[in-house]
Amino acid sequence: MLVVMKQSASEEEIGRVVETIQDMGYDARPMPGKQRTAVGLIGNDGRVDSARLQGLSGVLEVIEVSQPYKQVSREWREEDTLVTLHNGTVIGGSDVVVMAGPCAVENEEQIVGIARVLRGMGATILRGGAFKPRTSPYSFQGLGEEGLILLARAREATGMAVVTEAVDPDGLDLVAEYADIIQIGARNMQNYPLLRRAGQSGKPVLLKRGMSATIKELLLAAEYLLAEGNGQVILCERGVRSFDSHTRNLLDLTAIPVVKALSHLPIIADPSHGTGIRAKVTPMARAAVAAGADGLMIEVHPDPDRALSDGAQSLFPDQFEGLMEQIRVIAQALGREFVPTLPEPAQVP
Amino acid sequence: MLVVMKQSASEEEIGRVVETIQDMGYDARPMPGKQRTAVGLIGNDGRVDSARLQGLSGVLEVIEVSQPYKQVSREWREEDTLVTLHNGTVIGGSDVVVMAGPCAVENEEQIVGIARVLRGMGATILRGGAFKPRTSPYSFQGLGEEGLILLARAREATGMAVVTEAVDPDGLDLVAEYADIIQIGARNMQNYPLLRRAGQSGKPVLLKRGMSATIKELLLAAEYLLAEGNGQVILCERGVRSFDSHTRNLLDLTAIPVVKALSHLPIIADPSHGTGIRAKVTPMARAAVAAGADGLMIEVHPDPDRALSDGAQSLFPDQFEGLMEQIRVIAQALGREFVPTLPEPAQVP
Amino acid sequence: MLVVMKQSASEEEIGRVVETIQDMGYDARPMPGKQRTAVGLIGNDGRVDSARLQGLSGVLEVIEVSQPYKQVSREWREEDTLVTLHNGTVIGGSDVVVMAGPCAVENEEQIVGIARVLRGMGATILRGGAFKPRTSPYSFQGLGEEGLILLARAREATGMAVVTEAVDPDGLDLVAEYADIIQIGARNMQNYPLLRRAGQSGKPVLLKRGMSATIKELLLAAEYLLAEGNGQVILCERGVRSFDSHTRNLLDLTAIPVVKALSHLPIIADPSHGTGIRAKVTPMARAAVAAGADGLMIEVHPDPDRALSDGAQSLFPDQFEGLMEQIRVIAQALGREFVPTLPEPAQVP
Amino acid sequence: MLVVMKQSASEEEIGRVVETIQDMGYDARPMPGKQRTAVGLIGNDGRVDSARLQGLSGVLEVIEVSQPYKQVSREWREEDTLVTLHNGTVIGGSDVVVMAGPCAVENEEQIVGIARVLRGMGATILRGGAFKPRTSPYSFQGLGEEGLILLARAREATGMAVVTEAVDPDGLDLVAEYADIIQIGARNMQNYPLLRRAGQSGKPVLLKRGMSATIKELLLAAEYLLAEGNGQVILCERGVRSFDSHTRNLLDLTAIPVVKALSHLPIIADPSHGTGIRAKVTPMARAAVAAGADGLMIEVHPDPDRALSDGAQSLFPDQFEGLMEQIRVIAQALGREFVPTLPEPAQVP
Repeated sequence: MLVVMKQSASEEEIGRVVETIQDMGYDARPMPGKQRTAVGLIGNDGRVDSARLQGLSGVLEVIEVSQPYKQVSREWREEDTLVTLHNGTVIGGSDVVVMAGPCAVENEEQIVGIARVLRGMGATILRGGAFKPRTSPYSFQGLGEEGLILLARAREATGMAVVTEAVDPDGLDLVAEYADIIQIGARNMQNYPLLRRAGQSGKPVLLKRGMSATIKELLLAAEYLLAEGNGQVILCERGVRSFDSHTRNLLDLTAIPVVKALSHLPIIADPSHGTGIRAKVTPMARAAVAAGADGLMIEVHPDPDRALSDGAQSLFPDQFEGLMEQIRVIAQALGREFVPTLPEPAQVP
Repeated sequence: MLVVMKQSASEEEIGRVVETIQDMGYDARPMPGKQRTAVGLIGNDGRVDSARLQGLSGVLEVIEVSQPYKQVSREWREEDTLVTLHNGTVIGGSDVVVMAGPCAVENEEQIVGIARVLRGMGATILRGGAFKPRTSPYSFQGLGEEGLILLARAREATGMAVVTEAVDPDGLDLVAEYADIIQIGARNMQNYPLLRRAGQSGKPVLLKRGMSATIKELLLAAEYLLAEGNGQVILCERGVRSFDSHTRNLLDLTAIPVVKALSHLPIIADPSHGTGIRAKVTPMARAAVAAGADGLMIEVHPDPDRALSDGAQSLFPDQFEGLMEQIRVIAQALGREFVPTLPEPAQVP
Repeated sequence: MLVVMKQSASEEEIGRVVETIQDMGYDARPMPGKQRTAVGLIGNDGRVDSARLQGLSGVLEVIEVSQPYKQVSREWREEDTLVTLHNGTVIGGSDVVVMAGPCAVENEEQIVGIARVLRGMGATILRGGAFKPRTSPYSFQGLGEEGLILLARAREATGMAVVTEAVDPDGLDLVAEYADIIQIGARNMQNYPLLRRAGQSGKPVLLKRGMSATIKELLLAAEYLLAEGNGQVILCERGVRSFDSHTRNLLDLTAIPVVKALSHLPIIADPSHGTGIRAKVTPMARAAVAAGADGLMIEVHPDPDRALSDGAQSLFPDQFEGLMEQIRVIAQALGREFVPTLPEPAQVP
Repeated sequence: MLVVMKQSASEEEIGRVVETIQDMGYDARPMPGKQRTAVGLIGNDGRVDSARLQGLSGVLEVIEVSQPYKQVSREWREEDTLVTLHNGTVIGGSDVVVMAGPCAVENEEQIVGIARVLRGMGATILRGGAFKPRTSPYSFQGLGEEGLILLARAREATGMAVVTEAVDPDGLDLVAEYADIIQIGARNMQNYPLLRRAGQSGKPVLLKRGMSATIKELLLAAEYLLAEGNGQVILCERGVRSFDSHTRNLLDLTAIPVVKALSHLPIIADPSHGTGIRAKVTPMARAAVAAGADGLMIEVHPDPDRALSDGAQSLFPDQFEGLMEQIRVIAQALGREFVPTLPEPAQVP
């Protein structure tokens, strides 16, 4: 950490900064420059509260040199984290993994039916919301535990793994009973009690980037999970808030190589929420794989026009089939394996 | 709601839109124009899921004409909502009300001492965090229930009301036992289980605008509280995310007159989090009152250089005293009463 | 255009809106709804100034239904625009076209040398700035006309076409004498006198999206060129301003399929400015082609560490060679031809 | 400038950074830390191109410690700059100065009539566009020189000073013949040929902040003017681009105290463009003055419903009169003089 002093800072003010750093338990190293002095804080262990230094008299600005996250960083762990699921799917390795399904679980016929279709097209993980955070209190909020039960039936029927969202700490324990991957949604990326509970669950966690979260904040949110001892974390880029209204969000695909350089965790992309428009899902799914994503999360509905939520961004099954063909070619062009073939459902424990 | 068709839309596609609207239980009214046809949806009760229409073939865009919120809107309730506290403070009326205190409760001496000072300067509500959501898992996270007990002692000693944050549904019930106003922080503005619990608590709620929430989303979050039967809601502008790094957030003061026009709920401003810089708090507090804010939330610490969190944006007590003098003059210039004098603590029940 | 009235709007206020619309020369059609009345403006020819209606008493909001642009829209012209250059390169067709070169022209050895290298690797258009808009007045601002002369020599030596930026109306005429494509930079996207001059130049124009321009604004800027009779326009996505500082800009690749749907003009991507980081250029170039871009603009410098500007985002020549191999595979996977082979320089007129 | 190395950086990579800095003509000072080494660049004169260092192998990031601007900074010049006009108006001193008028000059009756009204209410500077940059090529673009002549007549008739916009270098010379202050609009904040010409004009310049310009970029744009020898510069906050559509722009009033701390130049606010909504202009004008603005720029039209541009944000004259009364009280509450009384027009040279 570097405390940059104003040009007009007095010796006394510089001395106060040095003392404060020492009082906090670190070493201080003043560096007089041509225009101004800066004071280096040596030995930052990630717990330094820069605000205390920022507010001192004579200070121009405080610059973080160390990153505030630790266990998620590639400097902490060199090799890629692999998240391995019961049905053999591995996320973060050479496979490009596809999670697909409807926005919300609506009934057994819908979810089991679509799961069979998606499995046949190469998806190995089934998505579907049982608890839906909705902007309006008057919108459909999901089937709750009933939805979890239906997801489990679809898993039995197909051998797919299941990813579904938890929205509060108590509900998380329930989700953990049924799901193979617990999803933390964008609105809850900084819901710390929820993150701690997910960190304690022992289950893999899919952590979506918040609406306007920086990449540093995304990694710090993941740090909450690792700090609880859970290293089975998958990050997900799903678009950030922007000033243009042509798409629902602005899918920030550069986040993929940026995260890959900073962290050992796998990262996937969700072009369905990232664009909000059916016709843009396929090109952006291709682009995400080309940018190096470890997988995709795609909304597919057997009858999007009658979906209870997010119908406008859900693909028709035959569109999903076309998408799978296109990304297969791109994945192979990049030297990646495509989604593994699942064993027959009967063989799944 | 208006469904705008593409120029190339066929009669069949238009017919499909009309049928879908009718199938959803509303009336459809096609309006052929010079360039294209639009189909009006008549009778929108706020439950229409536009995504279902957005995804239909031939649709260019769906435009919301009705607002999706109801009970928070000024069209639902014409007169201003007043939130009245046990110590006589009224928020949303002619008074400009000031909430002040440290970012976090640290110990009894700190919180009771600063409360006495602030009360003497005209603040009637004491702020102080017992549960602190922090971006890093390694930062100080608050004293928990111990902090709530200390806030209650400060209330007894001074007659001030207490506002403090709840971060999860179970913790909210605990906060509700001690606090006069339950704060929902910016990171939790769309934490719906927390909002529902706050709506059921029967206590006034201070709802802070999310990091990049639109005003519509802020009002929809408040709608969750009113939908649970709790109309005692105070909104708070605290800055939104922006591209400039000179200030921590971009304080959006225009939100104050915008919210005043759309809603009957009171709205205050938090220039401490809104700027993140001590020297900018006083000018922006003045500006907030000049823009029509019903109150302010200000961080003050007896010794900001040693604060356990957010020291850089906390005022020194004498700076707060100067701020109070300046906003008193501006409030009066606008024909508003300034903060009421509290009764002697002994008289407080 | 739809003028939405407040619930409380009086008959008189509605009447005033109808009269104003008629006074402006259009037809007005009032549509009473359950909650409020809306008044449709029929016959919008793209010249309606909505501000006049927006300000009328009783008006809640004015919603644009027609797009304000005309000649750039796909509704105006169905088939894709092809921009054909003297050396046979066609932009907007089945080829993925690559423009490459240094940020700034520095001297003859640099520009002719790198052109030879790039041509050998498959680039058919040479980029290089002679006039450089720089944020600081103290930074290197380009060689001016001397730079244009050197670009022309590199064209003679290699047969590549030349694209270079013009920054003011008089300078544009000079650039038009030397360049095959005139570039309008992001800072000048709404410099209308410059756009008009470019529209009158008769030369193909590469129009970069402004720092925080919406797609609608980008298309309206292009409309200035077409309104002057110049249909040879190539759009360029080069990243927009965002709140995250990990990359210089946020490359908005979804803009590519969005523009393709709205307009017949070709669109390319500039991942060098779009990310600002050398190591992110190759993955984002791959992603851009996967998203459907008609071409790429890439900064390559023979010795980036000594570049006079933008060295941090310039590729080394061997990195560019690797990038070309990767995008060749992706382009072919999408059924596109890759960059055409240029005829021998001697054959170029 | 501080070059932060990766943890994994080798001695050789650090040595390369040191050599490069020395090769650029500066001193290098390596500072080994607990986690990583940083190399300080000593003697930065504002001309260092950080990109060259950013791109070196082993470099994590380059942090600017010195500001890249010089003459605009308060460290360069301690005392406030005062801009004094021929009619006695002084901007940047204790007066709060008001510039008012229609968006565009439409005809003599309009501009002279409104000038007389505004002068009577306390405005001392008349605004009015003769050259209008418009997003659509089909919108009204201003009267051109005819508009300048009419503005000069209004000046003769009232003694007000005139501010009007220039949009290209040649046009700027024409504007400089007629105007007392040359306005550079938001779209042209980084139009460097225009800035240079304005810097050479010898006339005071009003420089508006760009749509999404950081404060650093605003100050660097002003540096272009001072670098040409023109210190008579007034900055103007007019709102930045945001994600919310309730207002046209997000008026960033915190920019006012931020600029005041960094620079000696005066800064005013434009709440008309900053909000885009008539009903929000008055509260935000009050807030701007309360935040410390040296003046205001307000759109007023004799008949806003018939304005040729921006009618929705123009005040009616009686609304402007009310605004002037309110800001007079706030200015006085802050110890500022309000707008000076102009001498009788006959006395104006």
